[in-house]
Amino acid sequence: MEHTGGGDQPLGPVDPLAVPRFAGPATFARLPRLDQVDRCDVAVVGVPFDAGTTYRPGARFGPAAIRAGSRLLRGYHAGLDVRPFADQQVADAGDIPCTPFDIDEAIVQIEAGARSLMADAAIPIVLGGDHTVALPVLRAVHAQHGRVALVHFDAHLDTWDTYFGAPYTHGTPFRRAFEEGLLAGDRCAHLGIRGPLFTPQDLVDDAGFGFTIVGAFDYLTRSVNSIAGEIRERVGDLPVYVSIDVDVMDPAHAPGTGTPEAGGLSSRELLATLRAFAGLRIVGADVVEVSPAYDHGEITAIAAANAVYELLGLTAVTAG
Amino acid sequence: MEHTGGGDQPLGPVDPLAVPRFAGPATFARLPRLDQVDRCDVAVVGVPFDAGTTYRPGARFGPAAIRAGSRLLRGYHAGLDVRPFADQQVADAGDIPCTPFDIDEAIVQIEAGARSLMADAAIPIVLGGDHTVALPVLRAVHAQHGRVALVHFDAHLDTWDTYFGAPYTHGTPFRRAFEEGLLAGDRCAHLGIRGPLFTPQDLVDDAGFGFTIVGAFDYLTRSVNSIAGEIRERVGDLPVYVSIDVDVMDPAHAPGTGTPEAGGLSSRELLATLRAFAGLRIVGADVVEVSPAYDHGEITAIAAANAVYELLGLTAVTAG
Amino acid sequence: MEHTGGGDQPLGPVDPLAVPRFAGPATFARLPRLDQVDRCDVAVVGVPFDAGTTYRPGARFGPAAIRAGSRLLRGYHAGLDVRPFADQQVADAGDIPCTPFDIDEAIVQIEAGARSLMADAAIPIVLGGDHTVALPVLRAVHAQHGRVALVHFDAHLDTWDTYFGAPYTHGTPFRRAFEEGLLAGDRCAHLGIRGPLFTPQDLVDDAGFGFTIVGAFDYLTRSVNSIAGEIRERVGDLPVYVSIDVDVMDPAHAPGTGTPEAGGLSSRELLATLRAFAGLRIVGADVVEVSPAYDHGEITAIAAANAVYELLGLTAVTAG
Amino acid sequence: MEHTGGGDQPLGPVDPLAVPRFAGPATFARLPRLDQVDRCDVAVVGVPFDAGTTYRPGARFGPAAIRAGSRLLRGYHAGLDVRPFADQQVADAGDIPCTPFDIDEAIVQIEAGARSLMADAAIPIVLGGDHTVALPVLRAVHAQHGRVALVHFDAHLDTWDTYFGAPYTHGTPFRRAFEEGLLAGDRCAHLGIRGPLFTPQDLVDDAGFGFTIVGAFDYLTRSVNSIAGEIRERVGDLPVYVSIDVDVMDPAHAPGTGTPEAGGLSSRELLATLRAFAGLRIVGADVVEVSPAYDHGEITAIAAANAVYELLGLTAVTAG
Amino acid sequence: MEHTGGGDQPLGPVDPLAVPRFAGPATFARLPRLDQVDRCDVAVVGVPFDAGTTYRPGARFGPAAIRAGSRLLRGYHAGLDVRPFADQQVADAGDIPCTPFDIDEAIVQIEAGARSLMADAAIPIVLGGDHTVALPVLRAVHAQHGRVALVHFDAHLDTWDTYFGAPYTHGTPFRRAFEEGLLAGDRCAHLGIRGPLFTPQDLVDDAGFGFTIVGAFDYLTRSVNSIAGEIRERVGDLPVYVSIDVDVMDPAHAPGTGTPEAGGLSSRELLATLRAFAGLRIVGADVVEVSPAYDHGEITAIAAANAVYELLGLTAVTAG
Amino acid sequence: MEHTGGGDQPLGPVDPLAVPRFAGPATFARLPRLDQVDRCDVAVVGVPFDAGTTYRPGARFGPAAIRAGSRLLRGYHAGLDVRPFADQQVADAGDIPCTPFDIDEAIVQIEAGARSLMADAAIPIVLGGDHTVALPVLRAVHAQHGRVALVHFDAHLDTWDTYFGAPYTHGTPFRRAFEEGLLAGDRCAHLGIRGPLFTPQDLVDDAGFGFTIVGAFDYLTRSVNSIAGEIRERVGDLPVYVSIDVDVMDPAHAPGTGTPEAGGLSSRELLATLRAFAGLRIVGADVVEVSPAYDHGEITAIAAANAVYELLGLTAVTAG
Repeated sequence: MEHTGGGDQPLGPVDPLAVPRFAGPATFARLPRLDQVDRCDVAVVGVPFDAGTTYRPGARFGPAAIRAGSRLLRGYHAGLDVRPFADQQVADAGDIPCTPFDIDEAIVQIEAGARSLMADAAIPIVLGGDHTVALPVLRAVHAQHGRVALVHFDAHLDTWDTYFGAPYTHGTPFRRAFEEGLLAGDRCAHLGIRGPLFTPQDLVDDAGFGFTIVGAFDYLTRSVNSIAGEIRERVGDLPVYVSIDVDVMDPAHAPGTGTPEAGGLSSRELLATLRAFAGLRIVGADVVEVSPAYDHGEITAIAAANAVYELLGLTAVTAG
Repeated sequence: MEHTGGGDQPLGPVDPLAVPRFAGPATFARLPRLDQVDRCDVAVVGVPFDAGTTYRPGARFGPAAIRAGSRLLRGYHAGLDVRPFADQQVADAGDIPCTPFDIDEAIVQIEAGARSLMADAAIPIVLGGDHTVALPVLRAVHAQHGRVALVHFDAHLDTWDTYFGAPYTHGTPFRRAFEEGLLAGDRCAHLGIRGPLFTPQDLVDDAGFGFTIVGAFDYLTRSVNSIAGEIRERVGDLPVYVSIDVDVMDPAHAPGTGTPEAGGLSSRELLATLRAFAGLRIVGADVVEVSPAYDHGEITAIAAANAVYELLGLTAVTAG
Repeated sequence: MEHTGGGDQPLGPVDPLAVPRFAGPATFARLPRLDQVDRCDVAVVGVPFDAGTTYRPGARFGPAAIRAGSRLLRGYHAGLDVRPFADQQVADAGDIPCTPFDIDEAIVQIEAGARSLMADAAIPIVLGGDHTVALPVLRAVHAQHGRVALVHFDAHLDTWDTYFGAPYTHGTPFRRAFEEGLLAGDRCAHLGIRGPLFTPQDLVDDAGFGFTIVGAFDYLTRSVNSIAGEIRERVGDLPVYVSIDVDVMDPAHAPGTGTPEAGGLSSRELLATLRAFAGLRIVGADVVEVSPAYDHGEITAIAAANAVYELLGLTAVTAG
Repeated sequence: MEHTGGGDQPLGPVDPLAVPRFAGPATFARLPRLDQVDRCDVAVVGVPFDAGTTYRPGARFGPAAIRAGSRLLRGYHAGLDVRPFADQQVADAGDIPCTPFDIDEAIVQIEAGARSLMADAAIPIVLGGDHTVALPVLRAVHAQHGRVALVHFDAHLDTWDTYFGAPYTHGTPFRRAFEEGLLAGDRCAHLGIRGPLFTPQDLVDDAGFGFTIVGAFDYLTRSVNSIAGEIRERVGDLPVYVSIDVDVMDPAHAPGTGTPEAGGLSSRELLATLRAFAGLRIVGADVVEVSPAYDHGEITAIAAANAVYELLGLTAVTAG
Repeated sequence: MEHTGGGDQPLGPVDPLAVPRFAGPATFARLPRLDQVDRCDVAVVGVPFDAGTTYRPGARFGPAAIRAGSRLLRGYHAGLDVRPFADQQVADAGDIPCTPFDIDEAIVQIEAGARSLMADAAIPIVLGGDHTVALPVLRAVHAQHGRVALVHFDAHLDTWDTYFGAPYTHGTPFRRAFEEGLLAGDRCAHLGIRGPLFTPQDLVDDAGFGFTIVGAFDYLTRSVNSIAGEIRERVGDLPVYVSIDVDVMDPAHAPGTGTPEAGGLSSRELLATLRAFAGLRIVGADVVEVSPAYDHGEITAIAAANAVYELLGLTAVTAG
Repeated sequence: MEHTGGGDQPLGPVDPLAVPRFAGPATFARLPRLDQVDRCDVAVVGVPFDAGTTYRPGARFGPAAIRAGSRLLRGYHAGLDVRPFADQQVADAGDIPCTPFDIDEAIVQIEAGARSLMADAAIPIVLGGDHTVALPVLRAVHAQHGRVALVHFDAHLDTWDTYFGAPYTHGTPFRRAFEEGLLAGDRCAHLGIRGPLFTPQDLVDDAGFGFTIVGAFDYLTRSVNSIAGEIRERVGDLPVYVSIDVDVMDPAHAPGTGTPEAGGLSSRELLATLRAFAGLRIVGADVVEVSPAYDHGEITAIAAANAVYELLGLTAVTAG
């Protein structure tokens, strides 16, 4: 058995001293597949879908890229003093297949896949795919947990209404989620917002959906702890869904994405903010919009994999 | 006036001795826009659509890439002894806008755009976009010319039936075209086919739609003239539509594409085959599947731009 | 009419809900061309010239790259609460053609082009090209506004004397501008300076030309507001010319440039500093030294396009 | 069950009409893992080892790259009229783990892994890894089949003696194989040789080990059939091991490799030569030296995956 | 003589006003070779070795890349007010050759090369190569200076024990150095540490070897001066060896490396920290783990070259 | 002494068994510098100049790139049965420095540099730089040998008159050479010509300068031997200057160049044609237009280095 752990302990990643990190299975962090474990606390699952993209496509290859970028992850999270792969059972659930040719149909497939997954695993962490995928995942999470507080990292609000008449795209999931009653009113937040908007009405609408905004430029004058503290207070003890569009990071840190905006967070700011959420009750999460054809040296994929690792650290804190 | 020609003569590209090739308008070959000319014999038009792609997306950026790759084109085609920009009026008609979110709706938009264009310009040459766009363009061409002989350069047959239940994708345009009666029976041909198929039935179906096949490996044992002669004979004096998927070229020559297949044509083989069609009655054409995120050094875009130039040479031969 | 606005209102960019952002004209932000508008408050114009480059060339392709990087810009600048494309008429004036083979001749051509442009448009914003182009543009600006305060973002002083005996290169424009009396004494500033110099005399000379320096490392200990406040005070109510060499940013944020220096600004620091200049009387500006052959994922081009957007925000503030 | 086939039939790749090709397992051609099948005729197995590399390293990432490049492979090989995934049971056996820090130890590990694999699967097809890996695989093959005829595609002879005193490197496997008696005398061949040698003695030694040489430049004057015919005659009915260093292809077709040499084969020439070996009794094979850090657009990986597909076609011919 | 300086003065780089920076010798900063100078205060020397790499290899090409990235360096360091190439004699000592095939043997070769070099030059600054090379260099430094304080910039501790049984790899040099008595107890420090560890024991072991840790995330809340002050106090007046793994920087700033970790330092933070060490008694240094195949636009190489320049500034301060 | 040879024998490259190929000096093929040898039969010299470029610049970095691409060259040329580094003394003469800011002045500098070099070395082989550099080198060759037969590999004629009024650019060297009487009438040839021309007059002019043309498409129907035979006959026993613009190769084989044209030669066709010139009396040569910013995986640089190797093989044949 080349996996670490097992027996009474959670089954962990392939042993890096037996199998070099550049070898072995292509699962996230070389974790066991879902079919290899008896129970699963957190499942990492890919949703390779990008038909909702307005600009540079390619996030369909995001799950594979994030998994490749996760090969260097090790077992002990010193910042949180947890062992994300040993304090809880994490597994890779593969990809949820869905059609690239029909957005409405794909959303149904993704929701079904997420619901099915959540029957086996308490907490889903989704590897996108474009941001469209957050909506069906939120539906599945809502079915189990009711209204959630949404903590949303992104350059963009993603609460627009329609593009070319299409209600379901990567720019609209959270307006739809609000309309469908999936979100807890006034308990949601965007972090990292920047760049031009369409009109001032964008902000009015967004506030009406229950969001507060921490802009990317706020990180120039506020500490990570101050920002995270504000969000923690807002969220309280509600179940939380964390949605991370990698374009929340500056294009220098995340070139491999579809709608890059200058002036974003560093990867360190993103990871530190996530880490400062220790104690929040995470019930689901996604890391989306990795488009590897625009990446280089895997820097976007590695940052995304580390964001997933922080999320696993947060669930380990609660599990511990 | 920085454009060459004009007056009695066709309005040509921007003068390269007045404006360096790396400067000036971003039209194809720095030709005039359609709104700058009084009449138009051949219109180059972009169709930035890639929602029909089964693998690597990004052909939505193809038209811009091909135009950038066309900046080095000059006015005299020595091989055909024609002046493609002076023997006929060529103009750049911009892009036909269409939704990226609904294939069916986009096809309607593209067909409408092509019909509208053909009211102004005798011959459309389309810059894709993925191969889905060939179907609506063929519909518009058929509306004016009736059934056409299709000369199709591609690694793939593109006569499959459906993917994920979708009838209109980049793998199916020519089965649909056959079913809709747009093609002249037994006068069509594929060139450059190679790579694995789904089943032997693929070939049976394809032959039933009126195609003959010249495989990429046939170029190892046959001369370009022999191959072109066979096609010329098959096509005869019918109106011809030439459809060029850049993946007909080997990935070495055309890495910037969505479904690359090893073992393809060199750019020289493609251009020489096109050139050997001098005299055919071209009524429309497309060059599709340029996905610049996978290109490097613009080599795919330059090859595609030169394929367009050969097509313009062919129409100039007939016009002359 | 696919452009937004028009009628009594300024003619704006192509409507993104009618034409996807990856389609349509290749003008800056898909704005109208200068020949499409009746009046013009601010003109964006390319100067594709790089014969003054001492190291990595390629900025001749800068204007096209910045335009491509501007396709995602939207109409509302929330940070400044202005609508840069609707509060004023902005247009794309194309490229000023000039010879790549003779620096002296090119400078004459650029100055003539800039003067001609300023007859039609109040404020020019130049897309370089290498930094050599700042001198002829400053001449044209001076002809209309007299001596200007120069706010110069750069890793380098650009006040050197000659290279290989050549007085006009991308390392010398501001010494020449001083000598020609184009600059307001003691009202100029460099921001972002860093890296090795030739000799201590470089700093002595530079101070003698009326510059103060805010180094890139000063951003480690000073806030953006403190820095911008110092500059605002120095500049006062003079007409201001803002010159932005993208190498002011760290190579991580702007790899696509000719003389990259480690230790630079983040794109967020650059954009925030620009934004903090609201109220200054901008009479001209340039964004130079984008060399796309060294870029990846368009990150340099996108940062440059956003810098232009901040400049347009500043002129909109004053126009409003 | 998302895999095709099964029941009485071999278990095949994941169904592309149920799971898009960019999704699903990362096995070669999305085939079942070895642990998912009851019997196995041909096993594809990775050997991610590159410590024997003399120039550009990185082939340790080769197996993952070739698997990614194999996602487009379909089930019917029209050129050979076989179904490589249905006429025989093919499975992906994962990677043979070995130390990157000690060549001698790694060779022992690889040989043990190959022997173990051959207990389960009749024919191994190895994804390298650098060419060092051919030696331990040949040992395992020899243990089962005795002396084999080696058909070796490469730019280089790989029959050198030592580098820096090391007897086992990617430049020496076939001298070692000869010395160990693994090869059938005078029944071996190199194809694609070119580029400078160390001394004339290289050729003398090589001939002494039983090799004939078809140079890359011979393809300019000889047909593929002539070349393949010569090899077939030489090999006769011996068990054959095919070893393909991707640098046999020109750097244009295979940039992603460690010791590229100008003047090589096109991917079409390589694939056509392989195909012309139909009927040979293949008992093992490798495709090595894919170094993805130097690849672009996956062209090397795709060519390598297609070479594997041709090998699978050859074994299917014999199996059929 | 195209070099600057000479005569009584140190022989400096090639004159940039006589030979453009993109031309001339490929030595570091175009400095003289060691054989061109009579005495040498500081020698820059390459150690192109990467056989100790656990993940992405390629640092064997690091020395050439750093030298290429150093071509823009000029002679006056304004921040420290020193002239690194004129206040002391610096020369490029070429590369220390060593076998890529045997780690133990290579370490012996590197130590011998470093000892030999230190007979000619007071201070060696090593261009790696992977971090394995620090151990033999430390041995040579220890032979001359006794126990040194180690100031170590890195994402990783590099005090692990063994990988695959190998005691000498790029993850273990400083545990070996401690065991061999090369380091001054409790006077060593790591800066920039981040990312997952194997187990909590890693930290316990590390502290036992005499290290303190300044994490990368500490830079979010502490100033560079505070951090550097702590290190200066810890180091005191001991001879100091500075070891810089470029992965101490964020992948955005240093993509060209073997084991990138998200959340790292900016190049500005690294350079400013180094600069704040003015006055420390540097007796040797290395800049390692530049793997150019993963770099783009030379940004990693340029940052590494500037780190070397800061080190030369520090030795010039002491020399002055 | 780490160089091979020496004593009575020519001093050769650094011994690859003592110093790995990725280490050691950055000279061409790691040959000795000119100042290291007593006599020199053939000197390889860089001319890093690209101010004469009409499109993509960057050939100023060509010499360094070609040298890097030459590291894999070994000592025995089996095709010609010569030892290019041992049958004659070859050395690397470094770069001829010249201003990037004034074409006329640079040409004077290059001619002076070439004349000076030819005082020390019988035969110069120039690494460009753009094609402008051929003219001053031809002047120096003519001064020693009188009129030469020019064998010119290129996509373009390079016999145009002026661009933007400039008589000396990379598109005009051979018209100037004809006008200056440097070429032997009717003994010159272009090989590889293709792509659009300006006007039919281009061909008339060119023929008037004494050139015959073998087009790139002629390689589809003629053998290399037939082509080379025609050239050999034309050239006769005249002194020959071989000028190789790497854009003679297809962009697939040589993407790293300034004015790429689809439909070119493979690297194999180029090398085989050169090899077929064995016996010609080469008195000088250049390999120009390598622009590494557009290259990938060094494929252009490697092809260029191999072209230089073939040229060295030709001079060795004559020397032998």
